[in-house]
Amino acid sequence: MFNGAILIGATERQGGESFHAIDPATGAKGDVAFHNASTSDVADACALADAAFDSFSTLTPNDRAAFLEAVADQIMAIGDLLITTAMSESGLPRGRLEGERGRTVGQLRLFASYVRQGDWLDATIDSALPDRTPLPRSDLRRVNHAVGPVAVFGASNFPLAFSVAGGDTASAFAAGCPVVVKGHPAHPGTGELVARAIAAAVKASGLHEGVFSYLPGTTNELGGALVADPRIKAVGFTGSRGGGLALMKIAANREEPIPVYAEMSSINPVVLLPGALAARAEALGTAFVGSLTLFSGQFCTNPGLVIALDSPDLDRFVTSAAEALSANGAQVMLTPGIHAAYEQGVAALAGAEGVTTLARGAEAEGVNRGRHALFATTGDRFRSNPALAHEVFGSSSILVKCATIDEVVATIARLEGQLTATLQMDASDTDNAAKLLPTLSRKVGRVLANGWPTGVEVTHAMVHGGPFPSTSDGRTTSVGTLAMMRFLRPVCYQDVADAVLPPALQAANPWGLTRRVEGKLEIVA
Amino acid sequence: MFNGAILIGATERQGGESFHAIDPATGAKGDVAFHNASTSDVADACALADAAFDSFSTLTPNDRAAFLEAVADQIMAIGDLLITTAMSESGLPRGRLEGERGRTVGQLRLFASYVRQGDWLDATIDSALPDRTPLPRSDLRRVNHAVGPVAVFGASNFPLAFSVAGGDTASAFAAGCPVVVKGHPAHPGTGELVARAIAAAVKASGLHEGVFSYLPGTTNELGGALVADPRIKAVGFTGSRGGGLALMKIAANREEPIPVYAEMSSINPVVLLPGALAARAEALGTAFVGSLTLFSGQFCTNPGLVIALDSPDLDRFVTSAAEALSANGAQVMLTPGIHAAYEQGVAALAGAEGVTTLARGAEAEGVNRGRHALFATTGDRFRSNPALAHEVFGSSSILVKCATIDEVVATIARLEGQLTATLQMDASDTDNAAKLLPTLSRKVGRVLANGWPTGVEVTHAMVHGGPFPSTSDGRTTSVGTLAMMRFLRPVCYQDVADAVLPPALQAANPWGLTRRVEGKLEIVA
Repeated sequence: MFNGAILIGATERQGGESFHAIDPATGAKGDVAFHNASTSDVADACALADAAFDSFSTLTPNDRAAFLEAVADQIMAIGDLLITTAMSESGLPRGRLEGERGRTVGQLRLFASYVRQGDWLDATIDSALPDRTPLPRSDLRRVNHAVGPVAVFGASNFPLAFSVAGGDTASAFAAGCPVVVKGHPAHPGTGELVARAIAAAVKASGLHEGVFSYLPGTTNELGGALVADPRIKAVGFTGSRGGGLALMKIAANREEPIPVYAEMSSINPVVLLPGALAARAEALGTAFVGSLTLFSGQFCTNPGLVIALDSPDLDRFVTSAAEALSANGAQVMLTPGIHAAYEQGVAALAGAEGVTTLARGAEAEGVNRGRHALFATTGDRFRSNPALAHEVFGSSSILVKCATIDEVVATIARLEGQLTATLQMDASDTDNAAKLLPTLSRKVGRVLANGWPTGVEVTHAMVHGGPFPSTSDGRTTSVGTLAMMRFLRPVCYQDVADAVLPPALQAANPWGLTRRVEGKLEIVA
Repeated sequence: MFNGAILIGATERQGGESFHAIDPATGAKGDVAFHNASTSDVADACALADAAFDSFSTLTPNDRAAFLEAVADQIMAIGDLLITTAMSESGLPRGRLEGERGRTVGQLRLFASYVRQGDWLDATIDSALPDRTPLPRSDLRRVNHAVGPVAVFGASNFPLAFSVAGGDTASAFAAGCPVVVKGHPAHPGTGELVARAIAAAVKASGLHEGVFSYLPGTTNELGGALVADPRIKAVGFTGSRGGGLALMKIAANREEPIPVYAEMSSINPVVLLPGALAARAEALGTAFVGSLTLFSGQFCTNPGLVIALDSPDLDRFVTSAAEALSANGAQVMLTPGIHAAYEQGVAALAGAEGVTTLARGAEAEGVNRGRHALFATTGDRFRSNPALAHEVFGSSSILVKCATIDEVVATIARLEGQLTATLQMDASDTDNAAKLLPTLSRKVGRVLANGWPTGVEVTHAMVHGGPFPSTSDGRTTSVGTLAMMRFLRPVCYQDVADAVLPPALQAANPWGLTRRVEGKLEIVA
């Protein structure tokens, strides 16, 4: 159950200005009064996180992995209440949320297995060279340490997988960092249920209560105070460009600046190459609309930009896409605010000079329904008006028609950083693809061929990140096991006695790690 | 030879306001007129670097390694002129500079071997799962790409190893990034000689001329324009806290913010534990002074802070250190400005309330001679006056006397981030060391036992970095092979055809890499 509490470690607090959940499907206000955490709640949560750091960050890999699995178990133990609460707070359907719950607990379990395996410690040993001339060399051993307490800001569009126990929290825990979550006000009941599950796992695992705190709230001040707290050493954020930039600014202006890992804004270009269009223009049109309109297009990897050479084949793609889009009814969007911003963005595109509206989705009854939208323009026009490349969060996309493959390259070269880029290509397009790839790979964190960018697998090879402004730090990913590396830093031990060394570096290798010794990996079977 | 040129790729330019080298040992002005590069030189260098990026970043590991080795060879080919020029521009003695040259070319060769070995690519393959339900999984492959052109700002105190072809340049080249160096005005002849060596290696290796440019100059505007150039994607800097913070600010306020890897400020605490003091107080005093005064203490890892429990053994340490220090004559400092700042810092410490001057080094004839200085204060006083913990660049150190080991922990807890911390300890100190380590390891990038922090090995396990303000980004190192990771970012390829994939990810593994496949490392013998 949930009752609108603020969770500071193991303590529940009420109080502060109250707010309510809104069911976006009906506009109805929920019964439970939630409360804005205060700046003293922030300070108390951060002090506890700091106090929990030493013990939590030095848990054995097994113990930390078991904790991650306990979080997953506790989330499943909430049962259907989690799904029904999330449905009423997000407008997303049951199947999607059940899938998202599976992704969330699967993610925690993948991190658990990766934590146990231990490669993330990057244990590295350069032995002493006592006979080296002119000077002997010391024994040098390096291992990754957790950076410190982490602040996490969840996203509205994944109330489970990118929220309280989402990828940022899971990867920070995996790295050994206590977490203070700023709860997203669009799904406060869902957030509190998951927060209570984490707190229960902390308790059941016998960990310091400060490993996790939960601060719900509606204000920018709350988030700002959390990022500014000197005990916080890194920030994970998924949300708008404006929100991410604001947190980056606060973090950069701290006495001790800290990294903000913000995933913000991406329009995910899809390039339709001529061979693919010739072979299957209609099928591409239908599949594109399927990706564009999925859950009202409320994905950071939504294909908001299509680039192609103008041709009769492209006309076939357009006809097919327009037909599919027109038949596709408007869906509930996540919040009234997101719906309003979507309508505003679509109206701006529809009114922009040189932009044609190719199709709009069907209307639907009810509030907060987002009508899909597909626009077209020329390469010249697109390149000369940067506003056309701004993300419209939701199922809106713009087709940019180019005359030559060089114009496609030039159009891509003008784009800001993106999470993904997709090539629709056949074997006959290989040369063109090779021509695009250098420019494309500079711009993105993930290149897809013949798929659609929506749908981000949680694996070792995944990169859900990309150059600014798709994220604040293009050297990182927020999805997949590599996400842990955001919350680790290397520490070197020089001539430190075995008894005092971290276990990962001790001579007996008690954790059975693969280690780099004298520059070569030594794999422990 | 050198003639005061600006090197924009393969082109030499003269012009701009001129400046001269100063021999700090005599104050004499050098003959050659050097020239401040202009903002249009910056723009031209960055445009060339951008044009060189695609070809340079996709070189085979072998070809890039060969280039690094060619740079090393060209530096050695300068011959003794490099040493004599550096001597006259830095006041450092021949032996030190010959050693530093050895370190510089050794560093380039270590990166070459590490580039060939290929682990830095972090090639990771999660194969497709076509039969997975409810949805099949795509083939996902991840590899590291170079981030783009890099700006490097060398340090005055290592005119070779942390300058034009120093660790930042070597690691950026190793990662596949073209480099634009802002030359340090304190050693312009040395800088130009090395820059010409790099340019010669670029040419001899048949690479795009934009792989390297060299912009000498004395102004902050020049450096600011370089960091602000939109084609620059990362910055390496070693120097003052003020300089580093200024560059961080410029980088954070760009339309596309970029990472600045600034190594700035550290006082490198040395903790003398009771067992070690009891066993060898006098020897520790002498050895400490050796580390403190080496080359006038002009090291970022200079031991500027000693923390110990007050005791008769500590008095023995003090007597020994004071004797050694007093006998040690003043040495030439790197520049008149550094010498003036040192004298100012020492005077401020000498005049601070509650601070005692334990010893000063012997005077010496000539200009720019820095007299060593050793101060003492109490833990209370030190913790209550943050100015006492500010770095005084040069051979100045302060001894902080504490009453209990808990007070030592509290004193460390109040420190800012540091490059290193050193424990002088015997077996009997193990419990105390274990008590200090959690707090200590939060603060530093390298923990040493029974050594001295000066002397930074170039190896795989080295970390020359640490929490802010010792560096701007405590997740990184500027020395050792791990330094490459600062200039790499991951890119994922989803269902991309083998023929179009980067070689590191192709099925045939043409580069013979160790790769992570389905989560497990597959080592190629």
